[in-house]
Amino acid sequence: MEETIRKFKEHLNKMQAYGHAFGILNYDAETVMPKGASEHLGMTYAVLSEEMYKLTVSPELKGYVKEILEHRDEVDYITRREAEELNEEMQRTEKIPMEEYVAYQVAQNDASNAWHTAKVTNDFALFAPHLEKLVNYTRKFAGYWDPDKAPYDVLLDQYEKGLTMETLDGFFALLRKELLPVVEAVVKKGPVVDDSFLRARFSLPKQRKLSDRLMEVMTIDRNHCTIGEVEHPFTTNFSKDDVRITTHYHEKAFASSMYSVIHEGGHALYELHIGDDIKYSPLGGGASMSIHESQSRFFENIIGRSEPFLAYILPDIRRFGPRALKDVSAHDFYLAVNKSEPSLIRTEADELTYSFHIMIRYELEKQLIAGTLQVKDLPEAWNRLYKEYLGVDVPNDTMGVLQDSHWSGGSFGYFPSYALGSAYGAQMLKVMERDIPVWELVAKGELKPIVNWLTERIYQYGCLLKPNELIVKACEAPFDPHYYVDYLKNKYTEVYGL
Amino acid sequence: MEETIRKFKEHLNKMQAYGHAFGILNYDAETVMPKGASEHLGMTYAVLSEEMYKLTVSPELKGYVKEILEHRDEVDYITRREAEELNEEMQRTEKIPMEEYVAYQVAQNDASNAWHTAKVTNDFALFAPHLEKLVNYTRKFAGYWDPDKAPYDVLLDQYEKGLTMETLDGFFALLRKELLPVVEAVVKKGPVVDDSFLRARFSLPKQRKLSDRLMEVMTIDRNHCTIGEVEHPFTTNFSKDDVRITTHYHEKAFASSMYSVIHEGGHALYELHIGDDIKYSPLGGGASMSIHESQSRFFENIIGRSEPFLAYILPDIRRFGPRALKDVSAHDFYLAVNKSEPSLIRTEADELTYSFHIMIRYELEKQLIAGTLQVKDLPEAWNRLYKEYLGVDVPNDTMGVLQDSHWSGGSFGYFPSYALGSAYGAQMLKVMERDIPVWELVAKGELKPIVNWLTERIYQYGCLLKPNELIVKACEAPFDPHYYVDYLKNKYTEVYGL
Repeated sequence: MEETIRKFKEHLNKMQAYGHAFGILNYDAETVMPKGASEHLGMTYAVLSEEMYKLTVSPELKGYVKEILEHRDEVDYITRREAEELNEEMQRTEKIPMEEYVAYQVAQNDASNAWHTAKVTNDFALFAPHLEKLVNYTRKFAGYWDPDKAPYDVLLDQYEKGLTMETLDGFFALLRKELLPVVEAVVKKGPVVDDSFLRARFSLPKQRKLSDRLMEVMTIDRNHCTIGEVEHPFTTNFSKDDVRITTHYHEKAFASSMYSVIHEGGHALYELHIGDDIKYSPLGGGASMSIHESQSRFFENIIGRSEPFLAYILPDIRRFGPRALKDVSAHDFYLAVNKSEPSLIRTEADELTYSFHIMIRYELEKQLIAGTLQVKDLPEAWNRLYKEYLGVDVPNDTMGVLQDSHWSGGSFGYFPSYALGSAYGAQMLKVMERDIPVWELVAKGELKPIVNWLTERIYQYGCLLKPNELIVKACEAPFDPHYYVDYLKNKYTEVYGL
Repeated sequence: MEETIRKFKEHLNKMQAYGHAFGILNYDAETVMPKGASEHLGMTYAVLSEEMYKLTVSPELKGYVKEILEHRDEVDYITRREAEELNEEMQRTEKIPMEEYVAYQVAQNDASNAWHTAKVTNDFALFAPHLEKLVNYTRKFAGYWDPDKAPYDVLLDQYEKGLTMETLDGFFALLRKELLPVVEAVVKKGPVVDDSFLRARFSLPKQRKLSDRLMEVMTIDRNHCTIGEVEHPFTTNFSKDDVRITTHYHEKAFASSMYSVIHEGGHALYELHIGDDIKYSPLGGGASMSIHESQSRFFENIIGRSEPFLAYILPDIRRFGPRALKDVSAHDFYLAVNKSEPSLIRTEADELTYSFHIMIRYELEKQLIAGTLQVKDLPEAWNRLYKEYLGVDVPNDTMGVLQDSHWSGGSFGYFPSYALGSAYGAQMLKVMERDIPVWELVAKGELKPIVNWLTERIYQYGCLLKPNELIVKACEAPFDPHYYVDYLKNKYTEVYGL
């Protein structure tokens, strides 16, 4: 048995190395690779993904996993959980023929390239055939994985064990019922502050300094976390030793980058505090996308858009920022960054209308995967839903259906994580407030106790626990979306004096 | 036979993919990886280098190569040359036991990390044990490769087929004999221009713009070539599709970055113009380090430090640069960037004294590899030679023996390439001047015909031809160092009015 475990770990180690190389190739492509190199990258992806496929479905690995699971009560908990995870991954991968697996990796790379060009040139037709290919692969794979379930449910389950359309339909119906009236009231009331100072020119080198300061306040260890610059911010990690957030800077929209840094910083905090015992294990990453988004959106919105935090950070912003900020009060700053307005771009949306952006994507991808919506009809459907839910007219596809990278990367079923994550965060806050003086700490810029609380209840576990187990660890109860609804209603009632 | 060739190419393709992944991991580590991630990177290197080793010495590959070489007259020239190259590489790799091969990769990674820290903290003792390890491995490997030859000759041969200490001893003796008197005359004469404008503050964003302009003048296709920022500039490439130069910026030394961009740009031009037929082949890179350095140093010095080029580029420099440059004449600029002065730092050295920096490293690594100099005695030996050849006192190891990264990466036998390359360039110039109006073109900023000439005679061939064959292609005669000596004597006689 000891020998089996040794060989099993060695195999995992090998898979980890391939994953690492893959991840770095990806990060490089997103951040610095010259544009003309994508064909070559595609060739390398094809070779390495074949190797990865072989490693994942290898008979040796299967043997180790089988033996470990047959003796699951005799092995340590980490090894057991690793075997369980690998078993699932193996079965999932095995169901896809290798040629299709490799062809899919290549199609993904092509789609990503096409999307970048299509977005810049507002040319959905250029992207459409690639998206269609990815949708078809995804529908096919979902069928391989579980032919008895609706394909979209199969995908949701991958991002969040046990999540179904039924649950999400209920969740989003509740949000629509409770929050649409608030959105309407806010629109009716109109602006409560002149927020033009948010569009004052803020030089990029100084915005970079502000980012460094934000990372410092968030207690992020820069020895293990860098900031890259990209068009579409994301966070990636190769182990807790190497976490990379990215951001974008616009001279006349410093808050956009400020909140992207805090958002991605939330993802980074999670990864940086995974337990050392699973550091290089396949369990050594976030448990699910929703749990991950609960952290990024917790820091971005619940902390980052709170008045105590803004009062604390404002002197730093003034120090680096333009003169226009000199006389802005913390309260006005708070009102400005919480301005709510139905809009076009998800990543720039306020907390209140954000879920509606997600809902639109959820409904569209549900139909794409069900086969009831054709890719060619997607822009029209997108524009119709934006009009229906948010009352806005979409002027072009660049600001519409082409705005997000997710579908170009083959991620269908990911978007709901953002709304779910936001809701998880609001529920966690309740318990945290009981345990530690959250707002006193935030007012002093002392975020460490908050990070410690989250580490103890969530971060350290990595994938050792399932998402629903983590929710219970953190919230001492199963998920309940009413906390989120209450949080938003209270906040916007206060901000807008409704 | 066709089937064998197909399988052979498939195998090469796989090796290419691993090489690509390795290269990107390396580039990432040099440019953006968080410092705290090196342990994890070491683990990944260990796994991938084992795979790479296995691919290189695989019995299948051996079979294909054997069959192809047995029918070498029946196969196309590219396939034949690929088989020859692989055969050599296979034999070289095979002679090293796999455990040592992998351990060496890890030792290299460790040494590189230690060197970075040692340089910053001026702590040679921290680096010494790592360097010793690398020296020992290198001596051992050289013994495996050819036990009958002096180990350092074995290493030289790897960088430049057929190169020996005997040749280099003669080459450097000639340089000493012919150039030391010039150095002495220049020192005696003293400065001929006030070059303080080179130390005027030049903002980094504007230096970045100057870099872009230099790349443009050099006709470098940015769609296939990026500029990264690092402490120690280098160029790397993964195929002709993806070439990356790097530079460093110092606010008060813009010429340093300017010449590093031109130097690395010369490397890039070579890689970008490899023939399309060997684009993704193992032959699709520069033929040797000396040939590579001949290109980087040709553009940096022969072109980049010429008066016609400086007169052409000066308006751009003025456009981006500080006021101190407003009244500088092209001739004064020319005198300033050609100022000769015995100094401490190789990469900042002028053309005339440069070879002496190389000579010092050559003599030291010759002794290290012969075992007649111990690592612990290296700093003292370094300082002694700097005093002897250049008359300068080395104040600390950071500015002395720790200044270059080469030894920390296990490169012994590389340094002579710089001096040889410089000498090749001077010889090529003679033939080029006969064929095209080099200086008229340079004066108009039209470098394309020069790049075309070099592409036709050198670049396109990649590794299809051996270095000595390329020299004959380019120079229509074997290598002759007298062109270099004459070039330097003429140039410095003119600059210093000797």
